[in-house]
Amino acid sequence: MKNLEREIPETGWQKKLHEIVFEADTPAGKVFDVTLIALIIASLLVVMLESVKEIRDDYGTVLWRAEWIFTILFSIEYILRLVSVRRPLRYILSFYGMVDLLAIVPTYVSLLVPGTQYLLSIRILRLLRIFRILKLSEYISEGKVITSALIASRRKISVFLVTVLTIVTVVGATMYVIEGEENGFTSIPTSIYWAIVTLTTVGYGDLSPKTPLGKTLASIVMILGYAIIAVPTGIVTAELTRRVNKVSTQFCPECHAQDHDADAVFCKYCAAKL
Amino acid sequence: MKNLEREIPETGWQKKLHEIVFEADTPAGKVFDVTLIALIIASLLVVMLESVKEIRDDYGTVLWRAEWIFTILFSIEYILRLVSVRRPLRYILSFYGMVDLLAIVPTYVSLLVPGTQYLLSIRILRLLRIFRILKLSEYISEGKVITSALIASRRKISVFLVTVLTIVTVVGATMYVIEGEENGFTSIPTSIYWAIVTLTTVGYGDLSPKTPLGKTLASIVMILGYAIIAVPTGIVTAELTRRVNKVSTQFCPECHAQDHDADAVFCKYCAAKL
Amino acid sequence: MKNLEREIPETGWQKKLHEIVFEADTPAGKVFDVTLIALIIASLLVVMLESVKEIRDDYGTVLWRAEWIFTILFSIEYILRLVSVRRPLRYILSFYGMVDLLAIVPTYVSLLVPGTQYLLSIRILRLLRIFRILKLSEYISEGKVITSALIASRRKISVFLVTVLTIVTVVGATMYVIEGEENGFTSIPTSIYWAIVTLTTVGYGDLSPKTPLGKTLASIVMILGYAIIAVPTGIVTAELTRRVNKVSTQFCPECHAQDHDADAVFCKYCAAKL
Amino acid sequence: MKNLEREIPETGWQKKLHEIVFEADTPAGKVFDVTLIALIIASLLVVMLESVKEIRDDYGTVLWRAEWIFTILFSIEYILRLVSVRRPLRYILSFYGMVDLLAIVPTYVSLLVPGTQYLLSIRILRLLRIFRILKLSEYISEGKVITSALIASRRKISVFLVTVLTIVTVVGATMYVIEGEENGFTSIPTSIYWAIVTLTTVGYGDLSPKTPLGKTLASIVMILGYAIIAVPTGIVTAELTRRVNKVSTQFCPECHAQDHDADAVFCKYCAAKL
Repeated sequence: MKNLEREIPETGWQKKLHEIVFEADTPAGKVFDVTLIALIIASLLVVMLESVKEIRDDYGTVLWRAEWIFTILFSIEYILRLVSVRRPLRYILSFYGMVDLLAIVPTYVSLLVPGTQYLLSIRILRLLRIFRILKLSEYISEGKVITSALIASRRKISVFLVTVLTIVTVVGATMYVIEGEENGFTSIPTSIYWAIVTLTTVGYGDLSPKTPLGKTLASIVMILGYAIIAVPTGIVTAELTRRVNKVSTQFCPECHAQDHDADAVFCKYCAAKL
Repeated sequence: MKNLEREIPETGWQKKLHEIVFEADTPAGKVFDVTLIALIIASLLVVMLESVKEIRDDYGTVLWRAEWIFTILFSIEYILRLVSVRRPLRYILSFYGMVDLLAIVPTYVSLLVPGTQYLLSIRILRLLRIFRILKLSEYISEGKVITSALIASRRKISVFLVTVLTIVTVVGATMYVIEGEENGFTSIPTSIYWAIVTLTTVGYGDLSPKTPLGKTLASIVMILGYAIIAVPTGIVTAELTRRVNKVSTQFCPECHAQDHDADAVFCKYCAAKL
Repeated sequence: MKNLEREIPETGWQKKLHEIVFEADTPAGKVFDVTLIALIIASLLVVMLESVKEIRDDYGTVLWRAEWIFTILFSIEYILRLVSVRRPLRYILSFYGMVDLLAIVPTYVSLLVPGTQYLLSIRILRLLRIFRILKLSEYISEGKVITSALIASRRKISVFLVTVLTIVTVVGATMYVIEGEENGFTSIPTSIYWAIVTLTTVGYGDLSPKTPLGKTLASIVMILGYAIIAVPTGIVTAELTRRVNKVSTQFCPECHAQDHDADAVFCKYCAAKL
Repeated sequence: MKNLEREIPETGWQKKLHEIVFEADTPAGKVFDVTLIALIIASLLVVMLESVKEIRDDYGTVLWRAEWIFTILFSIEYILRLVSVRRPLRYILSFYGMVDLLAIVPTYVSLLVPGTQYLLSIRILRLLRIFRILKLSEYISEGKVITSALIASRRKISVFLVTVLTIVTVVGATMYVIEGEENGFTSIPTSIYWAIVTLTTVGYGDLSPKTPLGKTLASIVMILGYAIIAVPTGIVTAELTRRVNKVSTQFCPECHAQDHDADAVFCKYCAAKL
């Protein structure tokens, strides 16, 4: 949202409109957001119900009409958003702008390509707006803590992912050679899929080793997967622990250095009393 | 229990009764609680055994009688609790009051609606009373640590849950489009169910992708699920770590060192008396 | 082992024997232990191979003989241990004493009750002796850290387990009522078994919900199971973090208080310099 | 790589060659590495595609030729690496040297033993070189943190693994006796395989207990596996937390306070210069 704040227009009616459709501080804005969320949920239900054959057979047309009503309403909303911001393009290219568009396009496309309307489930992303109505700030800040922890450990995590991908590829190929096509390991990609299913401890069982050697390798992979789950957990936890315990947002009066420990009494950089 | 303490009546017999049925300090109270727990366990076994067809066929009537005996006993107990508290309504509306009621109602209802008696398993909730007989306080306090940690991180957790729900919905709908009804993904709700089964690494295998594209998406979801388990773990761990390393917030009068153990008497850095 | 140290006899030959069979410090003792472990592993292989039908059919008698040779050797070893300790009864009742006995009994019993010889796999417990040959102390101390962390959090863990058991019972019974016998949920115990399989994210798939309502409840259970894994992890991690970071084993020269922080300079109880 | 630094030859053309094939600092070196990685990925795709029957039937010869082209290119590269280092043997025995060799050998072997070419997937290990092109150092250091944490906790982890192996063996053998061959537990090794599948919460479902007793034991194993995952996680997390909160071991000359951040210049307790 941040990069939209600077978008607020001066002119009266546009400013007013912006307040209503983009913010939830004014009564009007709150009403707008609540109705919007109600509509989103309703439309999601419609999409889901329509995908259930029994229901589609009986209430097909009703759902189809409802679907179109929602799409038209959302289209109007989208236009309102466009006219109420100063730099429309900026909004269009923003995350929420994208989502808002993707939330209406499929219905129109479904006229040409049937089936695409199910992609409307992307509308759930619009529900993230719900945080706007709850005490947004708090949730956002909480979210920020998690996100920053993940960002801080992105390199560690990517190292971990590369390791995992390497393991599953090698294991997958080996399994393909060991078990072979007669036991369902019909190709290396399939075997890699099996390796992922096993390492992540999902274990569908649609594919499982039959030969003693295969079962032995599988056992090793399982114990490996069971143990290395500790690594990402450790990485994220270590970062989060740091953030949870080190909460000081003090600025040093002298050198303006931040990031002091909660229990710091003097600035660790310039020795000024905090 | 807390909000019941203030409920203790003055009048002799009622006070006495309250001591027996609500507390476990007096010998009589202990005996009452122990027998009660024995009865609860016995009744639970009866409910479970009755649900096993073979056993029901042979011992149906015996179990049926036993069931009624337990229910009558619990009903009497319930009445005793009612008369022994000062404000019965308050007890009725308390958590334990609810549970105690729900633990007898189904039997009576089953006369009208057969099958409901199996809901009696809710009686297991009554077993939480068992902590009363063990050194309650300690367990309660331990439980409190966990609970407070969970409460402290409730926002982070809800952010996490919303993310998870968003992922499974989008993934579910996409899978429905990719795999389609012929591969068992008969509807979006079903596909979302599959997405949850996969993301949580449960992996029943009653539904599993058949198309290469589907398997690819599934693989991504699995690795995602395998990795993001780190987030809730990190959140809870960070909070618990803080509580377990219960550092006092005392400042040393001399060297301003903080971070002393709760039981410290002297500053561990400059030996000044705290 | 600890409570056996005080068992070392004075008399020469007995002392010598004790050194050999119980300790691994002397060359003789080391040789004894290594051969013992080799024998244990060999005997384990024999037990396992014998359980494989194909192999049993071809090499039945050979394996049978080998089995008896191992048992006799272990019996002799057991007697040696008996005569080499001062208080045999104490050894018999010690953990290792039990294991040593259980490692030979099944073979004799199998003469009366066939099949019991497979219980010989308990011999693997004897392999724990292997730590005696590796730098025992280090591993033991590491093990102690883990054990003490688990003991320190035993109450929290039991609170967690009770919660889990309560959840699976209530969920299981509810599933039994929802899905019913026609969908494989043939009894409450079976449904509880399903609930455990689901909550622990094992997900065999031998039992899985068929009704929409059942799938919804299952989804909730899965997400719950996926999230609450964070609790035991958090508990153990918090304890371990404490132990890993707080390693000081210093005793205060004045008040003999222990358990100071690694970075403590003065005793936090009596202010004496450490 | 480290032990190769000292390998850089003096002589001009050899030095130049070394720069190109072993380093990514010079433009030529970067180009070489990027092309190499492109070739590796391409060759991996070829290997995988060739394993898919449908594709092999149609494009078999094309893929076969491509495979040989890649192998010859990699063989040339291998020779270049050999001649450009001072001590070829040292390179041959280094990790990357091994991988580079294993990445070409199978193709030649497949002339004698068909099928081995699928082992070429080991080429993915060569992709680890990719870190050389990204800001290597950073990733390496991150990787080091994880590795050192794992090394520091290797003993704890091995204690954990021994415990797990002991559990699965005992449980496996017991299950074999309980369930028996008629329920699919055809041998102790198979039962141990099942125990691993269950304890690690993978749960294929290709094997699952049928008898009430078996299901009870299985339930215990699941809850155990669900709980003890906390141990490796705790171990690794504790170590990582320590490393991430990289506290220096400096003592404050004034107040003896330790536990300062690595980048601290003044004591945060008494403002003395560190």
